[in-house]
Amino acid sequence: MWHSTDLTLRPHPRGFHLITHEVQAAVPQLRTLRVGLLHVFIRHTSASLTLSENASPDVRRDFETYFNHAVPDGWPPFEHTLEGDDDMAAHIKAALLGPALTLPVRDGRLHLGTWQGVYLCEHRDRGGPRTLTLTLTGETARND
Amino acid sequence: MWHSTDLTLRPHPRGFHLITHEVQAAVPQLRTLRVGLLHVFIRHTSASLTLSENASPDVRRDFETYFNHAVPDGWPPFEHTLEGDDDMAAHIKAALLGPALTLPVRDGRLHLGTWQGVYLCEHRDRGGPRTLTLTLTGETARND
Amino acid sequence: MWHSTDLTLRPHPRGFHLITHEVQAAVPQLRTLRVGLLHVFIRHTSASLTLSENASPDVRRDFETYFNHAVPDGWPPFEHTLEGDDDMAAHIKAALLGPALTLPVRDGRLHLGTWQGVYLCEHRDRGGPRTLTLTLTGETARND
Repeated sequence: MWHSTDLTLRPHPRGFHLITHEVQAAVPQLRTLRVGLLHVFIRHTSASLTLSENASPDVRRDFETYFNHAVPDGWPPFEHTLEGDDDMAAHIKAALLGPALTLPVRDGRLHLGTWQGVYLCEHRDRGGPRTLTLTLTGETARND
Repeated sequence: MWHSTDLTLRPHPRGFHLITHEVQAAVPQLRTLRVGLLHVFIRHTSASLTLSENASPDVRRDFETYFNHAVPDGWPPFEHTLEGDDDMAAHIKAALLGPALTLPVRDGRLHLGTWQGVYLCEHRDRGGPRTLTLTLTGETARND
Repeated sequence: MWHSTDLTLRPHPRGFHLITHEVQAAVPQLRTLRVGLLHVFIRHTSASLTLSENASPDVRRDFETYFNHAVPDGWPPFEHTLEGDDDMAAHIKAALLGPALTLPVRDGRLHLGTWQGVYLCEHRDRGGPRTLTLTLTGETARND
């Protein structure tokens, strides 16, 4: 079974945001799979996806604090400055965290650890809506 | 062909550890595939997976030295401190390195470069046992 | 449908290089797929792959400047120094950026965002030719 759909997320403020439920809700076909993979891909170069702790909001704030420190806006050596101080830093952060997640599916559900959640990492001050491409593949249950 | 299994690794000390052989041994079904992919996923947010040099133990020690420097335990700006000095740093390191690897399979074997090995990256002082979810998919050889 | 092929790239100088067209040209079978995934894997531990902005050469130069700053050649604490000052730094950079990309395929084409391009990240001064393994899987269009 193969299924592909695009999901456009409403604009999020700069920072790290839990989107596990939105992603799951966009692919109800998950429920028919015995075993499979869900590929979640962000179609942008200044926002990214990661998987981390899904409980404490302070973890998501610490991600923002850390990445702003590691890749400073308007870092003087950057040459690519025309699109604003947050633009080049956003490209680097996005590459460090990555544009995609591949998640295991088992018995009709994402087979994640208890504490794992999908983060949208918005690296721009005004990133606007972001579009994900979700690709689902796997083996359907026998009695479907 | 689809196959999914969980593999629980014994506790490893903080640091970077080669686990290629353990991963391969957990999916003997690999041998039946002509072409495919093996998805290796860690079900935790304070340990991660990467692929790097499989020969010199000093490379793995240098990974630990570098990441401890880049993301210091107990970095003063961190707010999420309740679970210990190594906890928030572990979440960041895990996101930088990533929770999953997708590896090519060809002619019944992982089709890796000569020097590539799978690393378990244990970012906590006492991470305990870690569970991987292995998902194998591909096309079986014709005369199987 | 499953297809696997190796693609050897000519030597590139140290730095970040757009290779989207070369990758696409190596898997013409893409055109037969309605929905699928292309897995692009680099069989080396001192070069890597990422997805970023495909228009401005200064973005690619800024990547090189940033990563040389974040992971300095010959960083004094490194123990693994026998293969040159750029070797251990290259392993770390490669792990930060990652050895593989999984890209969505739809209607016979890579389904990337407008500004996304595949980068070869060459972290060594003389990396030589680099080999990629491309694995394509998906569902072919009905009237193929």
